[in-house]
Amino acid sequence: MSQQKKQQQKKQSGQKPKTAIVPTRDENYAEWYQQVVRSADMAETSAVRGCMVIKPWGYAVWENIQQGLDGMFKATGHQNAYFPLFIPLSYLEKEAKHVDGFAKECAVVTHHRLEADGEGGLKPAGELEEPLVVRPTSEMIIGATFAKWIESWRDLPLLVNQWANVVRWEMRTRLFLRTAEFLWQEGHTAHATSEEAIEETLQMLEVYREFATEWLAIPVVTGEKTESERFPGAVNTYCIEGMMQDRKALQAGTSHFLGQNFSKAQDITFADQNTEIQHAWTTSWGVSTRLIGGLIMTHGDDDGMIMPPRVAPAHLVILPVLHKEETREAVLEYCEQLVKDLRAQSFDGKPIRVELDTRDLRGGEKSWQWIKRGIPLRVEVGPRDMENDAVFMGRRDRGHKEKTTVQRTEFISGIESLLTEMQDGMLQKARAHRDEHTRIIDTKEEFYAFFTPEREGDEQSPAPIHGGFAMTHFSGDEHAEETIKKELAVTVRCIPTAGQGLPGQDEPGTCPFTGQPSSTRVVWAKSY
Amino acid sequence: MSQQKKQQQKKQSGQKPKTAIVPTRDENYAEWYQQVVRSADMAETSAVRGCMVIKPWGYAVWENIQQGLDGMFKATGHQNAYFPLFIPLSYLEKEAKHVDGFAKECAVVTHHRLEADGEGGLKPAGELEEPLVVRPTSEMIIGATFAKWIESWRDLPLLVNQWANVVRWEMRTRLFLRTAEFLWQEGHTAHATSEEAIEETLQMLEVYREFATEWLAIPVVTGEKTESERFPGAVNTYCIEGMMQDRKALQAGTSHFLGQNFSKAQDITFADQNTEIQHAWTTSWGVSTRLIGGLIMTHGDDDGMIMPPRVAPAHLVILPVLHKEETREAVLEYCEQLVKDLRAQSFDGKPIRVELDTRDLRGGEKSWQWIKRGIPLRVEVGPRDMENDAVFMGRRDRGHKEKTTVQRTEFISGIESLLTEMQDGMLQKARAHRDEHTRIIDTKEEFYAFFTPEREGDEQSPAPIHGGFAMTHFSGDEHAEETIKKELAVTVRCIPTAGQGLPGQDEPGTCPFTGQPSSTRVVWAKSY
Repeated sequence: MSQQKKQQQKKQSGQKPKTAIVPTRDENYAEWYQQVVRSADMAETSAVRGCMVIKPWGYAVWENIQQGLDGMFKATGHQNAYFPLFIPLSYLEKEAKHVDGFAKECAVVTHHRLEADGEGGLKPAGELEEPLVVRPTSEMIIGATFAKWIESWRDLPLLVNQWANVVRWEMRTRLFLRTAEFLWQEGHTAHATSEEAIEETLQMLEVYREFATEWLAIPVVTGEKTESERFPGAVNTYCIEGMMQDRKALQAGTSHFLGQNFSKAQDITFADQNTEIQHAWTTSWGVSTRLIGGLIMTHGDDDGMIMPPRVAPAHLVILPVLHKEETREAVLEYCEQLVKDLRAQSFDGKPIRVELDTRDLRGGEKSWQWIKRGIPLRVEVGPRDMENDAVFMGRRDRGHKEKTTVQRTEFISGIESLLTEMQDGMLQKARAHRDEHTRIIDTKEEFYAFFTPEREGDEQSPAPIHGGFAMTHFSGDEHAEETIKKELAVTVRCIPTAGQGLPGQDEPGTCPFTGQPSSTRVVWAKSY
Repeated sequence: MSQQKKQQQKKQSGQKPKTAIVPTRDENYAEWYQQVVRSADMAETSAVRGCMVIKPWGYAVWENIQQGLDGMFKATGHQNAYFPLFIPLSYLEKEAKHVDGFAKECAVVTHHRLEADGEGGLKPAGELEEPLVVRPTSEMIIGATFAKWIESWRDLPLLVNQWANVVRWEMRTRLFLRTAEFLWQEGHTAHATSEEAIEETLQMLEVYREFATEWLAIPVVTGEKTESERFPGAVNTYCIEGMMQDRKALQAGTSHFLGQNFSKAQDITFADQNTEIQHAWTTSWGVSTRLIGGLIMTHGDDDGMIMPPRVAPAHLVILPVLHKEETREAVLEYCEQLVKDLRAQSFDGKPIRVELDTRDLRGGEKSWQWIKRGIPLRVEVGPRDMENDAVFMGRRDRGHKEKTTVQRTEFISGIESLLTEMQDGMLQKARAHRDEHTRIIDTKEEFYAFFTPEREGDEQSPAPIHGGFAMTHFSGDEHAEETIKKELAVTVRCIPTAGQGLPGQDEPGTCPFTGQPSSTRVVWAKSY
C-alpha cells in the first residue's frame, strides 16, 4: 500500500504520477483491466459478439498453463481424449437441472448449408432434423460415450480429460473473464463407489490449488459452494477462489462431485464384482482461459502486466543499444552469445526463454512495450556494458527506473535463483494483499459497512475499491443469502476446506444473519 | 509382397491364415480400415452425425503429432494464437470463390438459447440477427484480424498458426479420413511481396514433407494441384500425397499461396517503405487428424495398427507373467525396475515411453490388445526371464510369433537404436510399396488398363486392389481431366515438384490424352 500512499501524496501535491496504463487501478479498476489486456497485447475483441481473439503473447501464457496442468493431470493417471463439439438437443434434455442451467446461453446449430437468398447474398438452408447445441460443457456427450465404454468394474475408474473450446452465450462479456467462446479443459471421470468419486473430486481441487499457487502465484481459498452456486446437476461443487487487487473474488476453477445424477440420466452402469449392475459415480472439473484474467488482475500494476516467471511467454528480453554504427556489430554479437548462454541455463527444469529485440525502434518505446507485456526481466546492453563485461538489468517487479548493472557471468549463473525469487515474491505479495483484506466479521452491521463503498460510483468514476473477503459464521439460510446478494451483490464464495489457516475458521459460532448456530465460517465477497 | 503371396498360397491350399483383423486388407480394404481403428481403440463414431470421438490411444498420437509439428512451426518463426469459432455470414461472403467452395457443407448457428416448446421439450429461441457459420477454415476471420494488426511494412511478415477444431458438413464420413468435425492446425501468414509469400508457401510444404517422412514414416510426393483441385480462393495450392496400401493417394497436407485474393477481399493493407499503401500477399496451410488415418492405412497390417516409434503413444509395454503366486512380487519388482531403467533412456531426445500392464487378464488376450494397438515393442517377463536377467521381446514390425530373448542390460542400452531401426524400416517399407506401384505410362490404353480392376466389386466383395500412381505427361486440358475423373474416378494428385527422384519426371514429352506437348509428368491416382 505504500505505492498507493505515494500516489495519493503526489496527487494531493497536484503532481500526477506518470503511469503507462490510464486509468490506474485506483481510478477505474475495470477500465484499467481492459487497458492492460490491450497494452500487453494479450487479446482483443472480434467481429463476433463476445468472442475474443487471443493474441500470440496471451496464447503463449495459455500454452504454458496447458503444459503445466497437463503434466499434473497425467501424473494423477488421467488420459486426454476428444469428444464432439455438438450435442444433440435430446441429449441435453436428459438431466433436467443441467439443461435448465445452460438453456439461456446456448448457441444452436439448425442448418447444415448455405444457399442463395435471391438478393445476391446467402441464407441458411438444409434444416437439421434435430438442432445441435454447441457444447457449453460436455457432461452429456462424454457421459453418453462413457455408457458405451464401461461394462464392468474392471473398466473403472475411467479418468479422461479434454482440452477444448466451449460456448456460453453470455450477454455481458469481458476479455478472458467472461467470453461467449473460451478455451478450457474439462476432466470427466467415472468410479465404482461414491467414496472414490469424492476422493477424485477433492484430488483435482488440490491439483488446481497447487497449480494456482505454485505456477500462477495466485493464493487461493479452496472450499465448497453453497447450493445456489452449485454446478447445474452436481451434488457438490468445490472451487478455488482468488482475491483480485480490487478485492473481488475470482472463481478460478471448479471440481464437481456429480453423484449418480448424470449416470442415472445417461445410463452409465457397470457390473460389479458380484455381477450386479450398478450406476457409476461421476465427477467433472475444469479451468479455463479465465485463469489468464486472474493472472492480470492479481499481478498487473499501473504500468501493465507482470508475468509470474513460470508461465511467462519469455523470461527476459535483451535490448541491444545499436544506434552507434561503429559498435553495432560487436554489441549484437555480445548479445547473441548472451542468448546462447542464457538458453543453456534452466528455470523450472526447462531452458530459459529469451527474446532478443533488435527492432529498429527508439529504445524507450521498445522498453515500454516489454514493461507493459510484463516480461520478468529487461536486459539492456550498450557498448559500455560490453566493455565492462556486464549487463544493465531491470526487474518487472520493481519500479521501471530501478535498474542495476550486473556482471555478465553472475547474471547468467544467477538467472534461475533470480526468477525463483521473483516467482516467490509475487506469491508473497498477493498473499499479503489477500490477508490484509480478509476480515473476521461477527455482526450484520459490520458486514454491511465492509461491503459499502465510501461513495457510490458511476461509469466515469466508479466507487472506490473496498471490501474484501468477509469471514462470518453462516447457518446456510438460503433466504438470508439471497437478500445479501440482492442488497450488496455479495455471495458466499465458499465454505472453506478445513486447515487452510484462514483466520477464525475452525471454531463454531453464531450466524450474524439468522442468529442460528454455525459450525464454521464461510467466505463472502463480491465477485467476477 | 511376399507376405501377400504367402497368404495367397495358404488360401490356395485351403488353409486360411488367422489374422486379428477380419476382413484382411486384400479381402476388403475399406472394412479392414474401420476394423483397425476400432480394434486399435483409436476412435469411434458418436451420436452426432459425422463427428468422431477420438479415444485416448488415438488422441495420444495426435498429441505427438502436435508436439512435433509445433516445434517445427516455431523453429520457422511462427507464433500460435486463437481466433473465434464462428464466422459472421457476411464475412464469408466477401471472397466469392471461397464461399462457393464451402457453402454446401457449413454448420450454421441461428439461435442463442433454448426455450420450452410447450410439449415438455425445448426448441431454439433468440434468433440471431446475422447467422454465424462454424468455421470450416479461418481465412475470413483471421484475415479480418490481420487487417487490424497490419499497418506498415514493419508489421510484416506476420506469421501465425492456430490449433483448432473445424466443421465441414460432409455427407459420407469415415473416421479420421473425412469427418464433419476434425482437429487441425491452420497457418496464416501475410507478407510484403509475392516472392516472400511464395517462399513461405513452399517452406511450409517442405515442413510437411519432412514431418510426414521423418515422423510418420509416410513417404510423400510434393507438388502443385491443378486448377480443379485448388483450395477455393487460392492462386496455387501445393500438397503432399502419400500412397496407401490399397494404392490410393491420400492428400495429407496442403499449403496455399493466396496471392492478393483474400487481402483485397478483406482489405489487408500496409504502408510500404515509401509510405504507399499496398495489399499484402497471404498464405495458408494446414494438416489435420486425417494424418492419423494416413498412418493407419500406410502401416497397419492384418493384425491391426503398427505405430512408427516417433509418434507412438508408448514405445513398449511390459507384460509381467504374474500367475504364480510365489514369484509374483519378485517379477513385479523386476519389471518396475525395468520401467525406471528404460525411462532413463531416450529416443528422439525424449524419455522412452513405457507402459506396465499388470491387469488381471489372460496373457494372450493382453498381448493381442497391444498388438492390435500397434505398440512397437512387447516385452514379456516371467520367472525364468528374471532368473536369466533377460526379457522376452516381440517387435510389432515382425510376425507376432517371432519373439526373442534378450539380455536385460543389452535391451536397455540398445533401445534407442532398436526404435530408430524400426522407424527407418517402416519408412523404407512404405517407400518400396510406393515405388513398386508407381508406373510411367505413355498411352491412354495402358492408363485405362492400370486403373481398371480385374473384376468389378460390390459392397460385400470390393474390386481387388489395383492401380497406383500413374506418371503421365499431361498438357493440362481441363476437359480431359474431367473425363478421366468421370470414367475412372482418377484425378491428378499433383504436378510434382522437380528433383524428387520420381521416375521419368524431368523430361518433356507428349500428353497421351490430348497429343499436346507437356513439360513434365504429373501423378494420377484414385484417392481418398
